[in-house]
Amino acid sequence: MLPQEVSAIIEEMRAERIRGASWLARKGAEAYIILSQILEGEELKKALEEMRREIPLANKTMASLYNLAQFIPITHDPNLVRAKAEEFIRLGEEAKREIGNIGSELIDENEIVITHSFSSAVVEIFRTAKRKGKSFRVILTESAPDYEGIALAKELESLGIPFEIITDAQLGFFAGKATLGLVGADNITRDGAVVNKAGTYPLALACHDNHVPFYVAAESFKLHPKLSSDEVEIIERPYARQGYRIRNFLFDITPWKYIRGIITELGILVPPKEI
Amino acid sequence: MLPQEVSAIIEEMRAERIRGASWLARKGAEAYIILSQILEGEELKKALEEMRREIPLANKTMASLYNLAQFIPITHDPNLVRAKAEEFIRLGEEAKREIGNIGSELIDENEIVITHSFSSAVVEIFRTAKRKGKSFRVILTESAPDYEGIALAKELESLGIPFEIITDAQLGFFAGKATLGLVGADNITRDGAVVNKAGTYPLALACHDNHVPFYVAAESFKLHPKLSSDEVEIIERPYARQGYRIRNFLFDITPWKYIRGIITELGILVPPKEI
Repeated sequence: MLPQEVSAIIEEMRAERIRGASWLARKGAEAYIILSQILEGEELKKALEEMRREIPLANKTMASLYNLAQFIPITHDPNLVRAKAEEFIRLGEEAKREIGNIGSELIDENEIVITHSFSSAVVEIFRTAKRKGKSFRVILTESAPDYEGIALAKELESLGIPFEIITDAQLGFFAGKATLGLVGADNITRDGAVVNKAGTYPLALACHDNHVPFYVAAESFKLHPKLSSDEVEIIERPYARQGYRIRNFLFDITPWKYIRGIITELGILVPPKEI
Repeated sequence: MLPQEVSAIIEEMRAERIRGASWLARKGAEAYIILSQILEGEELKKALEEMRREIPLANKTMASLYNLAQFIPITHDPNLVRAKAEEFIRLGEEAKREIGNIGSELIDENEIVITHSFSSAVVEIFRTAKRKGKSFRVILTESAPDYEGIALAKELESLGIPFEIITDAQLGFFAGKATLGLVGADNITRDGAVVNKAGTYPLALACHDNHVPFYVAAESFKLHPKLSSDEVEIIERPYARQGYRIRNFLFDITPWKYIRGIITELGILVPPKEI
């Protein structure tokens, strides 16, 4: 049995609708820090064993949770748990800054970037590109039914980056007007497929059909060392309109061959030529 | 100057948000019938000349309006105008029935048909397939922001055809679960591109990527003899959410090469091999 304070955080992670892999990873790391403040010795070790199973189950689509649970050692020592959890958070923050540096180099003057849903890594790239003095604009989807696009629009507004919002169904129409496709990811499988908000896959197809390079920004902790694309379990959340149940699978899977590169803090991963 | 009663119908056609090419064509034909009840002789002839310009302008994306305006002769004789307008309506009804007959043959037992938006030709195919005793199910998009999908769901419910509604952004995810793609069209250009509700193009791409055959159902009056795909002007309607303007182009353009066939009352048109 995990302490109540820790279970409550895992429950919050399980219920989260909007925020993605980075938020979940940070929240998971915070759960470890709280655990290290409550337990020690054999009790801590038992709880850490349970956490290694439970943290990834909070959201099975998220490699970040799997990698977090692997990153924290199973130990009697609360100080070690705390230090490793803090290191995980710090590495994540550094990774995002470095993704901003690397990714912003892909944005040329007058670039028109099309994106889908809300990704904090993508926002970091936009922020860095703006700070480097580049002028570019963004086409973004509203991202029904949770409308993460409106949250992104607010960020862009505060950064002074011009943008247009489109309905999700127009992503094909607008891909032809963009010069660069750029999205985040919740998970990258070991065969290179990108698990991200549903709509990413058709956007990648439309970019490909229009010869618009399509990039994914993701911290390396989103690379899942074990999961393959056919093992991904896509979470569904309830949604209804006018009394009708509407299917609401949160993610789709974009095959490696439609992705020009995955921007990580370690550099840009490029698909092998034979794909 | 057109009579007030006729101008009012054209204005209604111009303002229509939801209903597509078939409804507009019928409404246009009714405008001609009303005109034939009000004017005759030289006045009628002058009004018919104006109608030949004005009717297509009510919605420039709609080949049906162009073809209707060409179909009605410029004459002094109100009886001829009325007869031709009634013939246009009757031919349209016959075309739809025949599309139902031809298209329903494409639906095999246990077929899973994915569609987008609302098309009366597609509904006719479903109705005929059901009457022929076939059992199949339909995956349909909600079609934001006007939610034509809910109207389709109601039709399917009344026909006793099982269905699932999805958000527009999931069309890629669900294309892989379908065995047949089927949509209507508002306009087919002379180079074979399909102008239909925005979202059709990414659905066609996703069907293509998943080896799911993608068909379009359209009366032959939707074939535009003059317009090419690069001349299509896509209409935009106002739409906003949380104080943000959201782009809302109604249609997108699906190239011929992603379409397995266009189901018309004359038979199924198939793209030439070299595409």
